Amino acid sequence: MPHPTAVRNVLYIMCDQLRRDYLSCYGHRHLHTPNIDRLAAAGVRFSRAYTQGTICGPSRMSAYTGRYVSSHQVAWNGVPLPLDELTLGDYLRPAGIRTALVGKTHATPNQEALQQLAIDPLMAEKLNEVGFEAVARHDGIFPDDPLFADKRESAPYTRYLRDHGFAGDNPWHSWANAAAGENGEILSGWHMRNADLPTRLPEQHSETVYTTERALDFIQAQGEQPWCLHLSYIKPHWPYIAPAPYHALYNASQVQAPIAVQPGNDHPVYAAFRQHQESQNFSREEVRQKVIPTYMGLIKQIDDQLGRLFDVLQSNGRWDDTLIVFTSDHGDFLGDHGLGEKEFLLEPAVGVPLIVRDPRAAADVSRGTVDERLVETIDALPTFLDALGLPSAEHRLEGRSLIPLLHGTASAWRSYAIAEYDYAFQAPARERLGQPIDRCRMTMVRSERWKYLAYDGFRAQLFDLLNDPQELHDLGADPAYADVRETHLGYLFEWLRGLKRRTTISHAEIERRGQWFRYGEPREDSVVKIGVW
Amino acid sequence: MPHPTAVRNVLYIMCDQLRRDYLSCYGHRHLHTPNIDRLAAAGVRFSRAYTQGTICGPSRMSAYTGRYVSSHQVAWNGVPLPLDELTLGDYLRPAGIRTALVGKTHATPNQEALQQLAIDPLMAEKLNEVGFEAVARHDGIFPDDPLFADKRESAPYTRYLRDHGFAGDNPWHSWANAAAGENGEILSGWHMRNADLPTRLPEQHSETVYTTERALDFIQAQGEQPWCLHLSYIKPHWPYIAPAPYHALYNASQVQAPIAVQPGNDHPVYAAFRQHQESQNFSREEVRQKVIPTYMGLIKQIDDQLGRLFDVLQSNGRWDDTLIVFTSDHGDFLGDHGLGEKEFLLEPAVGVPLIVRDPRAAADVSRGTVDERLVETIDALPTFLDALGLPSAEHRLEGRSLIPLLHGTASAWRSYAIAEYDYAFQAPARERLGQPIDRCRMTMVRSERWKYLAYDGFRAQLFDLLNDPQELHDLGADPAYADVRETHLGYLFEWLRGLKRRTTISHAEIERRGQWFRYGEPREDSVVKIGVW
Repeated sequence: MPHPTAVRNVLYIMCDQLRRDYLSCYGHRHLHTPNIDRLAAAGVRFSRAYTQGTICGPSRMSAYTGRYVSSHQVAWNGVPLPLDELTLGDYLRPAGIRTALVGKTHATPNQEALQQLAIDPLMAEKLNEVGFEAVARHDGIFPDDPLFADKRESAPYTRYLRDHGFAGDNPWHSWANAAAGENGEILSGWHMRNADLPTRLPEQHSETVYTTERALDFIQAQGEQPWCLHLSYIKPHWPYIAPAPYHALYNASQVQAPIAVQPGNDHPVYAAFRQHQESQNFSREEVRQKVIPTYMGLIKQIDDQLGRLFDVLQSNGRWDDTLIVFTSDHGDFLGDHGLGEKEFLLEPAVGVPLIVRDPRAAADVSRGTVDERLVETIDALPTFLDALGLPSAEHRLEGRSLIPLLHGTASAWRSYAIAEYDYAFQAPARERLGQPIDRCRMTMVRSERWKYLAYDGFRAQLFDLLNDPQELHDLGADPAYADVRETHLGYLFEWLRGLKRRTTISHAEIERRGQWFRYGEPREDSVVKIGVW
Repeated sequence: MPHPTAVRNVLYIMCDQLRRDYLSCYGHRHLHTPNIDRLAAAGVRFSRAYTQGTICGPSRMSAYTGRYVSSHQVAWNGVPLPLDELTLGDYLRPAGIRTALVGKTHATPNQEALQQLAIDPLMAEKLNEVGFEAVARHDGIFPDDPLFADKRESAPYTRYLRDHGFAGDNPWHSWANAAAGENGEILSGWHMRNADLPTRLPEQHSETVYTTERALDFIQAQGEQPWCLHLSYIKPHWPYIAPAPYHALYNASQVQAPIAVQPGNDHPVYAAFRQHQESQNFSREEVRQKVIPTYMGLIKQIDDQLGRLFDVLQSNGRWDDTLIVFTSDHGDFLGDHGLGEKEFLLEPAVGVPLIVRDPRAAADVSRGTVDERLVETIDALPTFLDALGLPSAEHRLEGRSLIPLLHGTASAWRSYAIAEYDYAFQAPARERLGQPIDRCRMTMVRSERWKYLAYDGFRAQLFDLLNDPQELHDLGADPAYADVRETHLGYLFEWLRGLKRRTTISHAEIERRGQWFRYGEPREDSVVKIGVW
């Protein structure tokens, strides 16, 4: 079949907490991900893609708005998106493109603003899905807490599990994220010591399969009608526990050695994060060897499911008219640098996989290549608009379309990537560091060669990624690198200065009004005669 | 009567386009403003108050939101305020304080967002008044254009004029802002050559008297109920034409000599603004001598009206339980620096009068004094909240309460003031300078001694206000001042970095959540067990 000339659909696949280097196309030696690799071979693999924030909410809101965290303001999980922010669906739906969600968004209702503006409840429900039509929202993570009871019970996946006979107060926990003990007791997946056990739930009902099925249902029901689908897997995010056989595909011998903590690398913020429980636990080899094989298994399961999905797309024609993007919201330290989780701006957390396949002939020039340019999570939305031939919104969008990179038509490109993290919400770190609530920001400026990490109230860190790709040697206090730091502080200023702060009026409208008034030029037909004699 | 211990009401008086130095308490030699001076003698006069933007919309939205222009995004007149922005009334109304408007706001409906969010029309009407209850909105300026016909006809002042027998298509123009020719023809106030003629409308029906009357009506009707009134005069804003006798109170001999253009002061942006028609016209002595006496008359009329108002407040008890603020949204070049209008960040435009009277005994220590500290238009809202004993909103508000300055309890204060202007909307300047629409910003950083003006794409300007208060000598290219410029560029960075970008969640809520989760500390009772073994 000849390559088409137009993109009609968008498939935006996102994993949660998937490290860039845990895919075989990105170099993992033991974890083979042939289906994701198949996508890379058919598109472009970006080797230096960065997320704008290393936890779910900030990163995802950047993906959906095309804007940096400082612009959309969702500095942490659970922070509401301002109602004025437009998201993916707001841009695509007016063009007749159904914009659906299967899986996770981590969007938080902006209750205060909804009440303040007396928004209609039906409209409010729509706004709570940040622009998506929630075909099957599944944010995962339903703790055994009364606070979550309503949300848990109304979740489609809970209903699915109950419909399939998996009972209990919290089947998400007791079946999908717990193992069975020798005497039938429930061993929680929250405890990493249980990571090597299989879930009580059979694989066919697991979160990853359930999510894939809902995506297939949607795509098949959609037929020839155009669509944008955000297929957003909760995995390999914790709880680190996998269904059989994925719980046992890998073993401790296949676990990569951790990036070690360097003596003398004692930046106060870094040191504070290493005190966290997850950092302390992931610094133990026992923990890594138990958890990481399961983390690998969870990724392998996603790859298998994507294989099924890609097969369908290749058989029903959608492979040829769909722009496919595969990425992750952020990584996972897994003990590297003495850290667990992802709340620090080093590569294991801030680097994400990003693979883009444009089916059009114009993209043949780049098919199967690796692109080293600095790309960002905020580039997804502008890329979709460009691929679909829809107008951009340069007064709001801070990302850039990747299409010129795919088509070999890009001239200049950005010279640094930005990521942000705000530990105001991390009471332990904030209190240890003695910082006030509005002075807990870290900002990454990653240029071609360097990574500069700026902190409120503490000196910056600097890493030479050319000669020190593992970020072992902090040059932030070394007088020999003062000029490099100054240059990057300059970039930080330039970036801050360049954030879009005039979002309620388009450039075209400014141009129109400028011509209309032409204040200051003699025009006798002007109705507002300012300064005329 | 003893001084009260509590402030119950707020009277927020704003003039439009009133220069700081056109009041006798600020040093004008010929224009006597005894009533405004009376307020200054009873309160504190701030000698270095700055507006955040030198045109109406940006400045006023800063006043009503307590936030810098870059935060509220209203970069120019007619740019809609994001619906998420909270304004004065949103803060005061929940405390049972009626928050009313008489006069001008220059607020622009955010139609796109209202539609996007499907806001109820009644709610939308309320939102269009940026948080005020519009007792009598009067934005002035109704040109003879079909575009303004609806707005003009529905305006309360138009109805008022018609009710009093002043007929015609546009009585605002033909009566309140035009003079009669020798043969009865209408001579438009838009043409500055008519500035020395009296308006066709008798003074008792003029905009300034009408506005004062509506304020008196409101205050008297309110009785003992608490209130906040924004009394917002459109004058002395153009059209520069005054009712008798104010058209003839001053003469050319009382016009101050202009601040002359300095040879060699050829910064490209400054040079471009001097090309504007209003700049060219105001550079002619003939124009200044015709216009400025009338500008003075319009101010004198406001002072007389404020005298009536203050007399009422002193007789009905409100003088003793009302916080009174008098200010202006921006100044007017009137030919200084070879400029007309106000679209440049030099003192005649960016400096505003600011007088604050706190009736409480605690303010006696400062009564009648002049305060030289750097204060800003955004300080008004936090001052009101403080005076009324209402909670602040430190996650949104960027201004600071002035109450500690009035009570003599302030310790540290800000070390620089910020103002912004965006000439993207000024097609002539933008095109002359060849700047793209998103690179037309000028930002003022005014420290104790210096004024630093940063420009997109052009070198900064620097003025030594200690030794050169008229801003005659631009030190922006002088190598001897490189360190001063660097320091101020540092302030600009610090300011940008400090803008509030986490407005949808309060500090208290962040604190609460931080304690709730305490990620990273061993807590067996935590329902979300992140990183536990």
